[in-house]
Parts: sequence; C-alpha cells; structure tokens
Amino acid sequence: MKKVVTFGEIMLRLAPEGYLRFSQAEKYGATYGGGEANVAVSLANYGLDAAFVTKLPKHEIGQAGVNALRKYGVDTSKIVRGGDRVGIYFLEKGASQRPSKVVYDRANSAISQAKRVDFDWNNILDDVEFFHFTGITPALGGEVPAICEDALKVCKEKGIMVSCDLNYRKNLWTKAEAKETMSKLMPYVDVCIANEEDAADVFDIHATNTDISSGKLNYDGYKEVAKTLAETFGFKKVAITLRGSISANDNNWAAMLYDGSEFYFSKNYLVHIVDRVGGGDSFGGGLIYAILNNFSMQETIEFAVAASCLKHSIEGDFNMVSVDEVLKLAKGDGSGRVQR
Amino acid sequence: MKKVVTFGEIMLRLAPEGYLRFSQAEKYGATYGGGEANVAVSLANYGLDAAFVTKLPKHEIGQAGVNALRKYGVDTSKIVRGGDRVGIYFLEKGASQRPSKVVYDRANSAISQAKRVDFDWNNILDDVEFFHFTGITPALGGEVPAICEDALKVCKEKGIMVSCDLNYRKNLWTKAEAKETMSKLMPYVDVCIANEEDAADVFDIHATNTDISSGKLNYDGYKEVAKTLAETFGFKKVAITLRGSISANDNNWAAMLYDGSEFYFSKNYLVHIVDRVGGGDSFGGGLIYAILNNFSMQETIEFAVAASCLKHSIEGDFNMVSVDEVLKLAKGDGSGRVQR
Amino acid sequence: MKKVVTFGEIMLRLAPEGYLRFSQAEKYGATYGGGEANVAVSLANYGLDAAFVTKLPKHEIGQAGVNALRKYGVDTSKIVRGGDRVGIYFLEKGASQRPSKVVYDRANSAISQAKRVDFDWNNILDDVEFFHFTGITPALGGEVPAICEDALKVCKEKGIMVSCDLNYRKNLWTKAEAKETMSKLMPYVDVCIANEEDAADVFDIHATNTDISSGKLNYDGYKEVAKTLAETFGFKKVAITLRGSISANDNNWAAMLYDGSEFYFSKNYLVHIVDRVGGGDSFGGGLIYAILNNFSMQETIEFAVAASCLKHSIEGDFNMVSVDEVLKLAKGDGSGRVQR
Amino acid sequence: MKKVVTFGEIMLRLAPEGYLRFSQAEKYGATYGGGEANVAVSLANYGLDAAFVTKLPKHEIGQAGVNALRKYGVDTSKIVRGGDRVGIYFLEKGASQRPSKVVYDRANSAISQAKRVDFDWNNILDDVEFFHFTGITPALGGEVPAICEDALKVCKEKGIMVSCDLNYRKNLWTKAEAKETMSKLMPYVDVCIANEEDAADVFDIHATNTDISSGKLNYDGYKEVAKTLAETFGFKKVAITLRGSISANDNNWAAMLYDGSEFYFSKNYLVHIVDRVGGGDSFGGGLIYAILNNFSMQETIEFAVAASCLKHSIEGDFNMVSVDEVLKLAKGDGSGRVQR
Amino acid sequence: MKKVVTFGEIMLRLAPEGYLRFSQAEKYGATYGGGEANVAVSLANYGLDAAFVTKLPKHEIGQAGVNALRKYGVDTSKIVRGGDRVGIYFLEKGASQRPSKVVYDRANSAISQAKRVDFDWNNILDDVEFFHFTGITPALGGEVPAICEDALKVCKEKGIMVSCDLNYRKNLWTKAEAKETMSKLMPYVDVCIANEEDAADVFDIHATNTDISSGKLNYDGYKEVAKTLAETFGFKKVAITLRGSISANDNNWAAMLYDGSEFYFSKNYLVHIVDRVGGGDSFGGGLIYAILNNFSMQETIEFAVAASCLKHSIEGDFNMVSVDEVLKLAKGDGSGRVQR
Amino acid sequence: MKKVVTFGEIMLRLAPEGYLRFSQAEKYGATYGGGEANVAVSLANYGLDAAFVTKLPKHEIGQAGVNALRKYGVDTSKIVRGGDRVGIYFLEKGASQRPSKVVYDRANSAISQAKRVDFDWNNILDDVEFFHFTGITPALGGEVPAICEDALKVCKEKGIMVSCDLNYRKNLWTKAEAKETMSKLMPYVDVCIANEEDAADVFDIHATNTDISSGKLNYDGYKEVAKTLAETFGFKKVAITLRGSISANDNNWAAMLYDGSEFYFSKNYLVHIVDRVGGGDSFGGGLIYAILNNFSMQETIEFAVAASCLKHSIEGDFNMVSVDEVLKLAKGDGSGRVQR
Repeated sequence: MKKVVTFGEIMLRLAPEGYLRFSQAEKYGATYGGGEANVAVSLANYGLDAAFVTKLPKHEIGQAGVNALRKYGVDTSKIVRGGDRVGIYFLEKGASQRPSKVVYDRANSAISQAKRVDFDWNNILDDVEFFHFTGITPALGGEVPAICEDALKVCKEKGIMVSCDLNYRKNLWTKAEAKETMSKLMPYVDVCIANEEDAADVFDIHATNTDISSGKLNYDGYKEVAKTLAETFGFKKVAITLRGSISANDNNWAAMLYDGSEFYFSKNYLVHIVDRVGGGDSFGGGLIYAILNNFSMQETIEFAVAASCLKHSIEGDFNMVSVDEVLKLAKGDGSGRVQR
Repeated sequence: MKKVVTFGEIMLRLAPEGYLRFSQAEKYGATYGGGEANVAVSLANYGLDAAFVTKLPKHEIGQAGVNALRKYGVDTSKIVRGGDRVGIYFLEKGASQRPSKVVYDRANSAISQAKRVDFDWNNILDDVEFFHFTGITPALGGEVPAICEDALKVCKEKGIMVSCDLNYRKNLWTKAEAKETMSKLMPYVDVCIANEEDAADVFDIHATNTDISSGKLNYDGYKEVAKTLAETFGFKKVAITLRGSISANDNNWAAMLYDGSEFYFSKNYLVHIVDRVGGGDSFGGGLIYAILNNFSMQETIEFAVAASCLKHSIEGDFNMVSVDEVLKLAKGDGSGRVQR
Repeated sequence: MKKVVTFGEIMLRLAPEGYLRFSQAEKYGATYGGGEANVAVSLANYGLDAAFVTKLPKHEIGQAGVNALRKYGVDTSKIVRGGDRVGIYFLEKGASQRPSKVVYDRANSAISQAKRVDFDWNNILDDVEFFHFTGITPALGGEVPAICEDALKVCKEKGIMVSCDLNYRKNLWTKAEAKETMSKLMPYVDVCIANEEDAADVFDIHATNTDISSGKLNYDGYKEVAKTLAETFGFKKVAITLRGSISANDNNWAAMLYDGSEFYFSKNYLVHIVDRVGGGDSFGGGLIYAILNNFSMQETIEFAVAASCLKHSIEGDFNMVSVDEVLKLAKGDGSGRVQR
Repeated sequence: MKKVVTFGEIMLRLAPEGYLRFSQAEKYGATYGGGEANVAVSLANYGLDAAFVTKLPKHEIGQAGVNALRKYGVDTSKIVRGGDRVGIYFLEKGASQRPSKVVYDRANSAISQAKRVDFDWNNILDDVEFFHFTGITPALGGEVPAICEDALKVCKEKGIMVSCDLNYRKNLWTKAEAKETMSKLMPYVDVCIANEEDAADVFDIHATNTDISSGKLNYDGYKEVAKTLAETFGFKKVAITLRGSISANDNNWAAMLYDGSEFYFSKNYLVHIVDRVGGGDSFGGGLIYAILNNFSMQETIEFAVAASCLKHSIEGDFNMVSVDEVLKLAKGDGSGRVQR
Repeated sequence: MKKVVTFGEIMLRLAPEGYLRFSQAEKYGATYGGGEANVAVSLANYGLDAAFVTKLPKHEIGQAGVNALRKYGVDTSKIVRGGDRVGIYFLEKGASQRPSKVVYDRANSAISQAKRVDFDWNNILDDVEFFHFTGITPALGGEVPAICEDALKVCKEKGIMVSCDLNYRKNLWTKAEAKETMSKLMPYVDVCIANEEDAADVFDIHATNTDISSGKLNYDGYKEVAKTLAETFGFKKVAITLRGSISANDNNWAAMLYDGSEFYFSKNYLVHIVDRVGGGDSFGGGLIYAILNNFSMQETIEFAVAASCLKHSIEGDFNMVSVDEVLKLAKGDGSGRVQR
Repeated sequence: MKKVVTFGEIMLRLAPEGYLRFSQAEKYGATYGGGEANVAVSLANYGLDAAFVTKLPKHEIGQAGVNALRKYGVDTSKIVRGGDRVGIYFLEKGASQRPSKVVYDRANSAISQAKRVDFDWNNILDDVEFFHFTGITPALGGEVPAICEDALKVCKEKGIMVSCDLNYRKNLWTKAEAKETMSKLMPYVDVCIANEEDAADVFDIHATNTDISSGKLNYDGYKEVAKTLAETFGFKKVAITLRGSISANDNNWAAMLYDGSEFYFSKNYLVHIVDRVGGGDSFGGGLIYAILNNFSMQETIEFAVAASCLKHSIEGDFNMVSVDEVLKLAKGDGSGRVQR
C-alpha cells in the first residue's frame, strides 16, 4: 500500500445544527478537521496508507481528535502528544444569500507551539511516497515554518513527491508574510494546488477579468496564473480549483490542471451544497490519489473534481467517499438515482 | 367505505439523520415501510378502509411495525403474527451528485418464510373491492409466489380488481426469475404499474431512445412499452411513471396512463426532494384512489402524479397527504404559499 | 440610541423538526414570534433601543416569551403581566410543491383579553421616536382596537412617527371587519407596509393582472395600489413587498416604495428558503431602520429587501442579522462565499 | 374480546427534554395524554377492546391525538370530531427536592365545549362491559357533567359496570363544586378509585394522622376513608393508592382495596421514577383488567399496583406494559435483571 | 430594586449529552457559566437588579455569552467588549463512582487579558448595594488582581457590602500564589464564602478529622475554620458549604454560617444530582439575597442551602429558581410532589 | 506493547434513547458491541495492542463496525471481510422494577456463517501473549466451534495464555448443547470467567442458597462453584462476578477470584447504573490487563471489579476508562467528586 504523509493542524470544529446562527445555537456538532487532516482522511478512504502528523494535547479533547482520524483508518502513530490546547473553529452554515461564517479560536494550539525537536522526520517519512501540506501550516508561526522546511528537506533527500495547497488564511498572517515564507518553501514542491484566490493573495499573481463575488469566473485568466506559478517556482504540476459561487447553496465547481505544457479543464458541476468546508482539501486528496495511480492528466483532473464535487454533499470536513463512487461520477453518472 | 387490501413486506427502515453517510451515523431514524404497506397508508390517509396483509414476528420489533400502520388508520387485523425477524433496510439519503444508497438486510424475514397455510384469503378478501401487490412480494421467494397466486385466484373468484406494481429488485432475484414468476401472475392483474425501468428489467420490453442516468427520458418510447404490456398480459390499464433524475435533489416527475386505446400524459413537476423513497408507491396509492372513485383518465393520472409529487416532500416511506391536498396541486396550485 | 416601540401579540411557535408533517412530529421546536415582536428583535439587532409592548401571563410559558425577547436585547420592561394563556401557533414547514401550514391556537390569549387600563401609553411612549403595529393587533378584538387607537393618539400628540403593516389574517376577522376597523386607524399612520395581497384583502384595492399562486406578479399593477393607498389615507410612504412564490423552497423577493411622488423598486432576489415566516416583518424592521437613519428612498427599499432576503435563510420568526450583513448584501454581494 | 369504554379529555402534553426547566427549553416533546385516555391505552395494551370517547378538532393537532391512540390499538371510531382546540398541558419534570410542575392551557378545548347531542351513548355503549371516567371530566364544566350523567344512565340501563377515579383538579373547580357535582354522579359508580388526597378534597373525608408532604402515610387511616366512601355512595369496591413521596425521584408506591368487608393491602414498591404522570391512571387500568378477568381481591390489588409501579419507569402518560410484564412483577421479580 | 454587581469570567461550557464521555461525544451542549455570572443569574431570578461585569470579544461567540445573561434578565450593559477569545470549559458529567471531569481551555480569554483602564468602577458601582467576586477572578492573572483591588477600593469608598467566594482553582495558580494575592484582597471583604476545601487550599486553615473523599465530613471541625477566617481577615460573616460526596449521583449538602459569635447549621439534604456545577455559586446567590433582605441568621443559611440544593436538580451552571421555590423547600417541603 | 487477540462476534446495537420502550422509539442509537469486541476495546483503552478477530460484510454497515473499533485503537487488520449481514441486537434500557430487554436479530450473521478456511490462526496469533473468547462464540454454531478449536490449538502450540468467559446465551443453544461443546474447549483454557449464573447454565454446577432474582447472593456458595470448575477443567484461575440486582437502576457488584488454592473477594460496589450491558466484558478486560501486568491476586480482582464498576456508568457496550481511572477507584476513591 502506498504511504502518504500529511502535516498540519487538526481543529475541533463546532457547528450549530442545520442553518441555525451562532446566536441561536444551544448545541454544537463536534467534529474535527483541518486542511491536511482532511486530505489524509480522503486518502485513507481511498485505501492508501495515510498518516497525519501534528501535535495534540494528551487530554481528552486532544485524544478525541486522534480518535476521529483513527476511525477512518488514518495512521495516527506519528502524532506528537503534548501542549495545552486543541485549536477550535466555530462554523455557521450559510444559506441562500447569507454566507457561511467561521470564527477561529486557534491561537496557542499545541501544533502552533510545537518545536523542531518534536518531529523526527527521517523516521516519520520512512518508506513514504508522497508528502502534502498547505499554506495554513507555516502560517501557524513560531517554529512551524522551520518544521515544514525540515520535513521538505527530508522529502528531497528521500525523493518523496511533495504537494502544497497554497490555502491563504488572512487571519493567520498578512499577504506579505505569506509571500516571504511560502516563497522559501515552494522550491521543494512538485505539485501546487490553489483556489481561484490563492495565487493572488500569496504571490500577487492575478487572473484577469474575474470577479469572484459575482459568481462568474474567467477560466482563461487562470491559464496565465498557472503558467506563471510553474515558471516562478518550478512546479511540475499546477492545479487550480474554479468555484463559481452563485449562492451559499449553489456553486459551480470545476478545476484546471497544468503540467507545464498543456492545460486540462475538468467538466463543470453545478453542486447543491450540503457542506462546502473541506471542498478544496477533497480536491487535493483526489489529485494525490490520481497522481499516485498514474492516471492520465485528463483523468486526474476529472477524478479530483468529481471527488470534491461529492464532498460538497457530505457533512463535516472529511470527504467520506470511495474510489468507486468518485469514478462513477467522473465517468458521467451524476443523476443521483438511488443505489439499491 | 371502500375496502382495499395490499399484501407484501413491511421493513424496519434505518436511516442516518439528514445527509449523513452511514459511516458518520451515531443514530438511525427508525420508521417502517415497504411497497404495499406504503400504498395501504396512502389509501388510509385518503379515507379508505385499507388493510395491509403480511407476516410479522410477535416480538416488540414486529409489534412496532404493526403500530406504525395502526397510527395512520391501516387495518392490521389480518396480519399474521409469527416468524423470527423483521426485514430491515438501511437508507442513506443522497444529495446533489451523490446518490441515495440502500443496504438491504431482509433475508429470512417472517414474511419471506411464511407458508401458504398462514393466509386464509377467502376470509381476508371478504367484501374487498381492490387488491394490490408489487413485484417485490413474489421476489421474496419460498412459498410467497404461491401465496400471491392463492390471493389472486380468490380475487378472480370474487371479482376484486387487482393492481400490480412491477417494481423489479435486482437483489432479490434475477431478471430471468422475475420474468418467469411474474409472467404467471400477470394474467390476474387488471392495472399494471411500472417505472421507467421495470418493463425492461422484468419483461425485456424497452423504451426507445432513453438514457435514464442522463436525466432525460423519451416519453414517446414509453407509449410502445405500455401498449406491448397491455397486449401481452391483457391489462386493462397500464400506468408508467417517468422520473427524470437531474440530481439527488432535483427530479422531473410525470407519468403516463394507457387504457388500451388512448395515452394520457400528466403535467410534469420539477420536484425539490425531501425523500424520494416511496415515490412510486404513492403514485400507486393515488392511482387506486382515483380508479375507485371513477375519476376520468386524465384526472386519474393527474391525481396519481400530484400525490406522488407531494410524497417527494415528505420524510419516510409513507405518503402523508389528504385528498384535498392532492386535488389542490392537481388543479394547479404548486406555488407553496403558506396555508394559514 | 433611538427608541422604537412595537405593540402586538407574541405567540409560542411550535414547529416539527425539519420537513416533518404534524402527524409525524414527536417533538416541537419551541420558539416565540409575532409580527410586531419580530420587528422589535430586528431593530434591537440593528442596535436600536427597541421595546415590545404586549400582555403576557405571569406563568413560566409567559416568562419564556419575555426571555426570548430579552435574549436579543429587546426592552421588555413595558410588557404587562397577567392573563391566562400565551397564544400558540403550530407551524409545519413546506417543501417543493407542498405549502407550509399554520394551525392557530391563539384565541383568549392574554393580550386579546387585555383592557385599555392595562396600558399607560403616555409613560410607554415617553422619549420614543417611532411606533409600529400591524393589522393583526386590532384583529385580536375585544378592547385591543381601542388600545391601538389610544396608543396612536398619544403618538400623534408626541409627534411619534407611526408605521403599520396591514397584515390581513382571515382567521381573526372578515374582510369587512378589517376594512371598518383599519380605516379608523389609518389616519394616524405615516408609513404603510403591505404585501402583495393585503391591500386587496383589507381595503379592496387590487393590483391588476396578477395571479399570486402562479408565482408571477405584475409589478406595475402595484404602483396603482400604492398610489390609491396613499391618497386614501394620507400615508407619507407606502411600501409593498412583492413575493413571487415558485415553490415552498424557492421564491422571488423584491419590494416597491412609494413616497407620494416616485416609485422605487428594489432589485429582485431569488431566495432559497430556510424559513419564510417573519419575512414581511423583517422587511418592516429594515424599513424602519433605514427611515430612522435617513437613508435615501432607493437605499431604504434596498436595505429593507436585503434584510428580509436574509431572513428567509434564518430559522424562526426573528431576523438575526446585523446592519453590516444587510448592507453587504444590499450593496451587491449575494455570492454566499464563506466569511472567515 | 371484552369491550371497555372510557370518556374524558385527551390533551397535547408538551414537556422539555430530560430535567430542563421551562425557561431552558428550546423544544418540547409532544405526546398526548389524559386520565381516561391513559386507562384506555393500558387496557388496549392488555389486549382488551378499549374505546376512548371524547371530542377533538378536525385539524392536524386533533388528528395527531387520534393517531396517538390508534398507534396503541385504542378504538377511536367513537371520537366526535369538531371544536377548535386541543387542550394542552406543559410538564416540567422534577428531580430530587424540586417538584414536577404542570402548567395547564386547557380552557375552551373541544371536549369542554361539547354538547349533549354530540354523543349517542346508546350506540357508543353497545356491547360494552365496563365504563370508566374520572373526576376531571365533569370538572370540565359546560354540558360535560350532563354528558357524563347521560352516559352513566345508559350504563345503568345496560348493566355496564362503572368505575370512577375521583381525581380532584383544583384548577378546574372548587372543592364545593366538585362535591356537589360528583355527589350526583357517584350513585352510578361501582368501583371508586382515589389517591391519598382525593377523598379529602372532593368529599371532605380525611385520613387520620397523615402528612402527605412528609413522605409518610398512615395506612390505617385510609381504611376508614374507604369504608366511609363505600357506605356513603354504595360503591362495591373502593381502591386507594398510597404514594409516599420521598423526593421527585423516589416514591413509595402501594395501594389498598376494600370490597365492603375486607381491606387488602398490596406490597409496597420503592420506585425510582422515570415519569410519574399517569401513575394513578395506570393503577385504574390494572384494576379494571383484573376485575374483568375475575382476579381474586388480593391478586387484583397486586396487579393494579404492579402495573402502576411499572408505569413510573416509562416516559409519557401512557403505560406501555403487557399483562405478562405486570404479572411477573406482581409475582415478585422486581430485580430488573436484563431479559434476553 | 436592589442593585448588585458581580465581576469575573463567563465561559462557554461545552458538555457531552447525558452521561457520554468526551470520547463518545458527537455534539456538545453549549451554555455559558462562571462563578460570578452564575451568582448574577441567581439574583436576577430572585428579582434583584443584578449586573455582571467582565470583558468579552465582540464576535458572535462573545455575543452569545451576553445573550445568555440577558435572557435571564442580567444587566449586561457594563460588560466591556473586546479581546480575542471566550474562555471555554469542557464538562463531562460523572455517574455513580465515575467522577465528573472538567477540561479547561481558558487561557488568554478576553477577561484574563483585560486592562485596568477597561473598567470605570466609579461608574459601574454607582448606586450599587452589594459586590461579589470569587477567588477565580484574581487567579486569572495579568492585571486582573489589580482590577479586583480597584473595584474593592471603590466599594469601600461607596460603602458597598462585599462578598467573596474563595473558590480555589489549582489549574490557575498555586496555593502559595493564591494565599499571597487573596490575603491582600480579603480586608475589603465582608462576607466570606468557602467550600469544605477552600480554606485549606488558599489559607492553609484545615478542618480537623475530615476526609472529603470518604463522603463524611466532621462538621465541628469547620467551626474552627470559620472562626479562624473571621479573626484573620475581619470578615463579618463566614459561610461554609459542607458537601458529603457519596457518589457522583448522590451527595449530602448542608452549610454553616458564622456571624462572629454564633454558628448556624442548616438542615442537611440528600440530593440526587442532575448537575452539580454551580452548586457553590447558587449558595452564594442565596446567601446574598437573604442578607440583602435581612433574613435572620438561621433563615439566611437555610435559604442559601435550599437554593443550592435545588440547583443540583437543574442542568447548566445557572440556578433557575424563584424565591418562592426556595422558600417552599427551606420551610420543609422536599417531597417533590407534582405542582399542578 | 503486549499483544492480545479476542475472537467473536460484533453486533450493531440499536437502542431507543433514554428509557423509551421499543414501542415509543422513533430513533435508535446505533453503536457496536459484543462480548469479545468489548474486551478488545477495554484493553486498547488500557494501552495494550489489542486485535479483534471476526468476519464482517464488506458493505457500509460492516465497515461501520470496523470503524467503531478503529476509533478506539483496536487493531482490525485481522478481521475477515465477507458475508451478508451484521448481527443486530435491539436493547431497551430498563428502570426501577422494569428490566432491560434485548431482542436479538443475529442469525445468519457473517461470522456465524464463517468457514474454517477464513482464518489463518498461525498468522493471526503471531507474537500474541493472550487470547480471549466467550461462550457466545461457539454458540454461533456452524463451523464456529471448530474455528474456536483451531484457534485454541494454535494458542497451545505457541504457549499463549487463554481466557474464556462462559457467558451462556439461551437464545443460541440449549444447556445440553452448551455443555457438550464447551466441555471440549475448556481444556485449552487457563482463566475461566463466569457470572453468578453461567456455571449452573453451562455445566450444571450450582451455588448453594442463592436466588439471583431476590437481589441477594450467597457468596460462600460460589467458592464451591469455582473449586469444582477448576478441578473439572484444570483452570489455573477462576473468576466469578457477583451481581446483586436490587433494581434495574441499582446493583451490588463484586467478584471472587480463585487461584486453585485461595479465594480472593473484591470489595463490593453499590452501582447506580447508566448502562449495564458489557459489565461482564469490562470485568474480563480488567482481569486480563491485571494478569498481563502481574498484579497480585487481590489487586487483580480489585482492578477487574473497579473497571467493571466504572463500566456501569458508561453508555454503550464499550468500557471507556483508563488504567489511572480504574486504579483510583480500586484504591478507594469512589466519591465521584468533580475532577478539574
């Protein structure tokens, strides 16, 4: 079984039921999620040997995070235990014209306080084929950017393929900080993943003629973005997700893959949203699976987009789908007829 | 009050809440349903004297099935009590491009193990005007096909009108088995009900130019299907539901009725789905009600389709609507304005 | 802080969960709401000093109504305590072609039995800038119409601006009774609010060429309605909401404002409904806020419609939105993108 | 199957979940219950043909009351449909030293407004062996006491045995009113049921040396009460329940039966309470069953007390137990060991 | 109405449902609580004008804390808004021999980061009669001990009576730190409240012959504790709660009050626990109410203990009881009989 | 880490919420459990490397069983996937005098249909120190007794210590069948575990002077039972749990351990029950842990009883406690005081 490692933060996600606003909530659904953890779960659900690396407190709230990953078969044996708190994010689900809202309470989480000595990357990355992280991880600050670099250097030594989802978070750092730190890490990256805003936010590379809040994207503008990214940092592949947000309930969803020479566009899905958080991560999970299984470029982008299309129909951060389910959709059956 | 009897299996339906996948469910909504039981509830809700006949264990899980029917006024006094288990089906509700999924656990249910001596049809069908069953019932195997035939013979003797919903279930039998058994029972049937796939699955009668997973149906192709069915088995009426599945959330819904000479198409509804399981059964219930009340052919098909259109907005297998509600929609008010 | 007073009934709202029908409900969500109370909550959420006036029993069910208002910052110190019961309404949420259904159980509520001596309007309206009521309040009968008139006279004396939402309720009175009573109260009103049916129901003033159950409204027909209303009763402003009901899930939503000379139409929103009860009240709340803050006519109608557009995405009678959220939508961002 | 009829009010019971106080409740469990309806459900659960007679509105809230009874096999075909509202009671469950609390909202319910012409007792009581009502029914006022008398006269004519549970409700009438009305009805009664307070409240007949709020009862004092009751009204049997309330969680529970010559005391149970509402009604149900089945006096009181002991372990007004379960406890196994 | 101010932290309380362990929880009940906030709610429920002072972030999670207090009538107008996070505590409810468990996540909460300049005590304490805080507040560190002292000095100037509940929290500071800081604040305190461990933890004053984990307390040993406390710090009154913990479900609960000359012991309650968090705070609330209303010493301690006895039967931190309910129990009716 | 393997069936457990009876349940809590699976979870929670071996279908309901075990760290890599169904048991929780009730629906589960070739015991038991099974496993019939024997022979070869919990299930086999089959397997067993009834049911070895339904056990009678068991089958240790069932809520709980020469009795716990299913399994888990860690005989029985005492306070089949928690109780702190 192919081994993949992802590294980052997993948070406790607290969300009011249904479409209740925070001010109406008497209880919170309590699940766990985070960019790289979500990718690990996707991959474990596809049958890969996926390990997630982070630091989590020893107490029950930290342990529940470990359990959430174990339940879906993620290898948690490399998680460092210690520190005081689990990062939290509060999520209010939007509907119609009302957007979803996230309130972060993640400062001083165990992983954000972690030290370089906590992680023995030579051991962690033993026998590993693929390593994935996102721009959120170095944004945690402290020693975390250095920990990322430590990991990436070992990846280089061991010939491990690396993907990074740029994933800019304005609450964690400024665009300038992001650009400086990410620019140092990008040379280690083989596969760059971004959404329709990230390249602009992190590297000041803009798609032309696009207004994301209008719900309409100019797909051609993203060709240039991908090309510039690849040329600047030497990425072997650049994948960009293209979300057209019609409302909090309805989105268009598609993506583009660039391999340094050709541009491959997926088909577009009109998705009726159950939960869109983790949509980008499920795209990353699908992309990594397809790459590790040597799908063609077109098959790769179709698999990744179909996987993330399905994620939008699933509650929680994690994408709970099988390879068969993704392939069925990628091959064209999106009719939603009952499977008996 | 007109008496109707339906005969078949009622199962315990276990469904995760909302759009949760099986792997995320910590609890299951526990309701009861099954093709013929659903029709009986429809008819009881329309004010008819509807009895459901089956075999159910004496224990509490069997009793809860009886209670579920009694609650809505179905006559359960003819249910045979005995056997070991209640059939179960697990239902995961789909959304957007993700289809609903059913896992059956119905083998060895009390009804599937029932014996011909369990049912005294002369008594059960006393004073009855209409008898309904579906293709699922003989598919249960054992003595059940013979029990069906026993019932049908008594219907013939007593001049009871008979309807059958073909309802092919690939988990219960092969197409060849279905064809053989059903062909023997069809001569007793007056009204044949089928969905857009059943005639092909059971009797190898195909509509031309239709791809059901594309969401687009060729309505004209079904005229030929209905005609062939009527000619082959001598049905007085053939009704075919026409589901155009756009996604797990949105379906087109219409139907056609053939009376041996003319084809009557209902108006089409674009339904936003709450729960589509039991959609076909609610059509059958509406059809039987309309026939028993001597509606015109066009009124009949409009009533049946409006009834089943409303079912798609209701949780559970049972169609919880009144005659007034169906008529209001059939007559054209589908605006959904609040009724105060 | 600007002080506003609203006067009317607040009811216990009992609603089955999700899309369950009454006959399926084993529990009811228990919240509180009512036309004028809903407006008070809207205004408190916008930061105004909003007081709600009514009469509620001293017992726990009455107290829970007080608490529901206090929670959101409404001043409840002017509520008269006494009487026997809290009015109740049962609400079943519709879906697709199935309409929402309301069963009222409000007869003999404490406020409907209230006496003129219960309310010392000189004290209640001290320092108040704006007074709001709806046509539901006088429809409660008994001394309530007289209590309304008492309040309105004091408003006149104190120069308090008055708005009235016509809000015809056929269960409470006939059209003839409504016309007679409302005609007496209208001369005190500065701002008249109505939906697409109210003017016809209460004052027999009809929009031409409109069939509300078809989902299509003839906007021009409402210009004449507004003009006639203004001329008949001397309203300074007339605002009419224009709901185009496609289904129980999807509505078009817009409004028109007439200031005696010009007609201002808002943009139209296609809303995917979470809960549409209180939609009109949230429009009233937005309108009052905009008027009190001297928005331009066009800004006023856009604010009121954006506010009520958002209400449709929120569970319960109350509109839980901030001024910032309304302005963001009114200015054009309805893409529903996640706010992190 | 022996036919029994009970007559009275069935109310919608709205109860916060668990031990939440009214002020904390965001939802209410919605079940149905009422003294005589509870007895009917007990008897249906024991396999008797039990009909409940009342008047309920035609709307969905009334229908849900009918459904609640049908679910458990009660014959609802004699219920008169009409009137405006279903009586409601709000129930907050107590714990430890905090008592349970009931807020009634039952005025003007359909049954309280019923007319003598609504009930054709000759038809209703055809073939009936036993008739039961409680002191709550005549307390509803209006024509209801006369309706009771109408029923009782027909019972006398037909030789139907009659039981009455005195059940004094201070919110419905004064002790003087109760005494006057009940004194007129008692001559028709064969079996009188009372709790440790009723005889004092209704007929001013007091047990000596008992302080019910101390949790200690003087059993001997109740012998005199029973004897006086029997002598005054000519009851053939008098049964008195003896609740020793230690706390809201823990009660002693026993009863005494007097047959005009001997006193039979049941064993005492220390019950750990799940829900004690309906405790007295379940005693009545057990008593009637035992009498109809010609149990000995001692067996009768043991059956009735064991039945009601079990009721305290069951949520809701209804006693959901079988004859076998009651007999098992009455015969001595109260160990609560798991039944596999 | 008498004005009382309490000052401290209010936290978001996240608790699994029922008796689920953290590792089993899929959702958390979300309420708010904290020592001084709990006292403020108690007092507001008794009808006093109670204000709670703290610092809370402006975001929705902070606002929900404000709403929780407003709902029960607490004056929140003096709460300073700002800072980043709301302190959180996770609470797992124990049962039988398994203790309840609290995991704190309160570091860096807005109040713990507050500055002296945030609070204008002259304004806050205007017209106030009573001020209350607990040992938890200075334990928050940073400038909070100084803020406490600022408040206490103003109390002294204005002649406001002051109570302090020692409430030692070992996760917030060491015993040595507590002793040093608290010793400086005690001279401003009139009424000292402590549980059976606090005096030992904070001031090294031990009751003789008591082993709290055995469930048995030596009451006489606490007389000496109270006397020493009063003599050391000049308290006018010392109240000590005496919890005898039999199991997580069953506790003995009593208290002692010392007025400098006499010792007053309350009656003892055997409480069957629903939720014991906030038990001590509800004692403080009862004590303050009784003192402000000039109850006798014996009445005071009985009122405070009865109030807190009832709290153990109520979910959440807040004590939701009325003066009448407390008095009824204090006067001896703990039988838990249903109140209709 | 010490490796332990347990072998048996894991079932889907469907339980109404709280104390609802089956007939009242609208949803079922869905967890997983079974004698040997419960022991595996206990051991994983204690930090051992515990693997559970069974056969489960590949479908989602089977996978959810795997996930339930993985969540708590049980090694599921040896589970054979295949077969059609997951065994189910329905559990209704008892209260007071009403016993808990189990309805089994486990016939034809995947494990009961498993074949000897499905299990490669040499591989499964590689490096294992301890093997555990219960009398339920051979009772499943078919090839399962032979599979057990296959496993036990490999244990013997590898010198793996074996424990067996007799666990008689009357629904699965007769006493005669149990005796015959179990007698063949016992010679491989080192540690025999039984409850107060098992030895009598399986081997006709009776304790004298004990009536289990009376709630009183004669402890001395069990000494003889243990001795006879040890002598008959050559067990090195015999452990017998001693449940004194006072009611469904309250049990006495203790145990005895016999090592062939001495009898060691644990202290007795009066447990207030949250969920007693799995109580015996948690005893087995504690016993195995203590044996593997070379606790003294007295420490061993105290650990096992304290572990299972705590289980009674935890929902579900699994015992969710840590070694520290068990030791704390075993050493005497059962006061249930809050752990902060």
